[in-house]
Amino acid sequence: MKILVAVDSFKGSLSSLDAGRAIASGLLEVFPSWDIRVLPVADGGEGTAAVAQFLGGKIIPAECQDIYGRLHAGYWVLWNDTAIIEVAVASGFVTPDKRLRDGDATTSYGTGQLIRQALSHPDVSRVIVALGGSGSTDGGMGLMAALDCDFFDQDHNPVKPLGRYLGRVMEARIQPITKPLIGLTDVNVPLTGTNGAVMMFGPQKGVPSQRLNSLDQDMAHFAQIVQGPNHHWDDIPGAGSAGGMGFAILALGGILQSGAEVVANWVSLDEWINWADWIITGEGKLDSQTLQGKLVNIVTERSHLQNKPVVAIVGSRAGRVEDLYKKGVRLIYPIVPGPLSLDEAMTNARCYMRDAAIHVGFTLEQCHP
Amino acid sequence: MKILVAVDSFKGSLSSLDAGRAIASGLLEVFPSWDIRVLPVADGGEGTAAVAQFLGGKIIPAECQDIYGRLHAGYWVLWNDTAIIEVAVASGFVTPDKRLRDGDATTSYGTGQLIRQALSHPDVSRVIVALGGSGSTDGGMGLMAALDCDFFDQDHNPVKPLGRYLGRVMEARIQPITKPLIGLTDVNVPLTGTNGAVMMFGPQKGVPSQRLNSLDQDMAHFAQIVQGPNHHWDDIPGAGSAGGMGFAILALGGILQSGAEVVANWVSLDEWINWADWIITGEGKLDSQTLQGKLVNIVTERSHLQNKPVVAIVGSRAGRVEDLYKKGVRLIYPIVPGPLSLDEAMTNARCYMRDAAIHVGFTLEQCHP
Repeated sequence: MKILVAVDSFKGSLSSLDAGRAIASGLLEVFPSWDIRVLPVADGGEGTAAVAQFLGGKIIPAECQDIYGRLHAGYWVLWNDTAIIEVAVASGFVTPDKRLRDGDATTSYGTGQLIRQALSHPDVSRVIVALGGSGSTDGGMGLMAALDCDFFDQDHNPVKPLGRYLGRVMEARIQPITKPLIGLTDVNVPLTGTNGAVMMFGPQKGVPSQRLNSLDQDMAHFAQIVQGPNHHWDDIPGAGSAGGMGFAILALGGILQSGAEVVANWVSLDEWINWADWIITGEGKLDSQTLQGKLVNIVTERSHLQNKPVVAIVGSRAGRVEDLYKKGVRLIYPIVPGPLSLDEAMTNARCYMRDAAIHVGFTLEQCHP
Repeated sequence: MKILVAVDSFKGSLSSLDAGRAIASGLLEVFPSWDIRVLPVADGGEGTAAVAQFLGGKIIPAECQDIYGRLHAGYWVLWNDTAIIEVAVASGFVTPDKRLRDGDATTSYGTGQLIRQALSHPDVSRVIVALGGSGSTDGGMGLMAALDCDFFDQDHNPVKPLGRYLGRVMEARIQPITKPLIGLTDVNVPLTGTNGAVMMFGPQKGVPSQRLNSLDQDMAHFAQIVQGPNHHWDDIPGAGSAGGMGFAILALGGILQSGAEVVANWVSLDEWINWADWIITGEGKLDSQTLQGKLVNIVTERSHLQNKPVVAIVGSRAGRVEDLYKKGVRLIYPIVPGPLSLDEAMTNARCYMRDAAIHVGFTLEQCHP
């Protein structure tokens, strides 16, 4: 039996490779003769740089600011001529100091700093920014400011690049960057509106509920100033990813691509699917969002094209996800063996994953596709 | 697709029939053309009387004592010429008053009262006692006392039938009962020793850990007095079930049978297995005990004899249960969709069961046996 394991990272507990290896070790314990290949994958969020590293990329340490402007030891990955930058590194959500959980005071400046440093590296001819996992909601203003863009208020005074000042910006001088710039999105949201960056993700980033509407309006205003009358970057799916950094990538002359699709190509996913009898994918939380371009969906669709059966091992499942079965998923298996707390599930994720894989293995062995 | 659903009750949340109906409703929502039969089953514990009722038995109300000697509104089921009595009714574990959780002060007297009342009913020609789910650990002394057996100490004074006085009994006058008496066991434990009634189940019934050894010795002493030199009822598998009521059934001239096997015969399980394409079974907690005569194991073994594939839907799974797969189980599926508390799982058991069944249904549809 040839098994391809390509699972997303389980946020807060296991990387894609660690999760995949836990699955492989469970399967091999019971079925030692099976041929198992573990691929690291990611959907454009955390873990994207790790895949580039796995494929030969080198970590380049780089200082930057976090979302509250504090000095932060960041890094990016140099992979051949490409810089891979995760927004989660510089501009990820910061929880240790709860007094600082003010979603309106955040900036994406640090990610801009990393891009700037990468652009100045002699070996870099293009920059890829993995947009998932951000903690900021500033429309990408900080990112642009770090890259020599300037923002002024009605009195022509500079405006500090924080979410709370977006509404003050009356003039923007954007400096398009000169090397290819690609943003990898894990969500397809536009910049503003009910499905936008503020409404969809603001609450989990600490934006108070009474501020959501006005911040959304501020961001719409900011977008009008930046893009002018001739562009509509704010409407492009993905512009709202990373609190609006997707929009900033577009404004700087870059493009957006599906993170899961791009990473799938990096690891030659299609070839490995062709090789395998079964494909095991998975993610921390499988729900209706999964069907909208998340990694499990990409793996499933690509397997379906080759008529290969898929099993999803998940931290949790919710809602109606029946379309996955119509696309060739045979089994969605939760790793929790029974009632237990999220904390326990995260702490022992490796054991539960391994154990779930053993059960899945017996089902695979007996249920021929 | 013809599906037989025969799941054990989920203790504290769903009866066998309720659990089975939740599964059926999930399957029918997504696969309305499937032919689904739900059988109520039980393993000789709680739910056994409900199966007899489902098959046409009548509830007969009957007063009795609970394990602390308090008056209790009990019942038994009259099914044709047979009385079905659950020890859980009179002698089940009582939790409301925590001051009373003294495992050493319990008696099985109430179950004896129900047997006595059933025996005196004109239509009853045999009595079946379902031994699972008891809260007492008195070696069945109470049960026997309610049926005219007498117990004396060394001064020839009567001994009260409580676990704490077992060690005082120096003489026993047993009155064998005159109609057939069958005890249905859900465990195969002997009366005493490391795998016996006290050591295995005493702790969960409120016997303090420092009392376990001496209570086990008291019970061994009591058994020697009751059975005399010519019998070894205490060693018979199941003698230790229901805190020793299995032993009492044997001492009264009765026999022990596997509850799951007997109930399986009541509902013509083999015929329905023959009819079905897939068999869905399940229980609250699937673990290594399952393989020792529990309902899921019986359903699996009987299905295996007919080469029919089995799916188990479980509240939780633990330990290595791989032998089930070797017996034809294709999938063991936990009903919890992710990390959640036991309380939440129990409260919403019906929903989780239904939802799990939908997922299982898609897997069955696609994985041909």
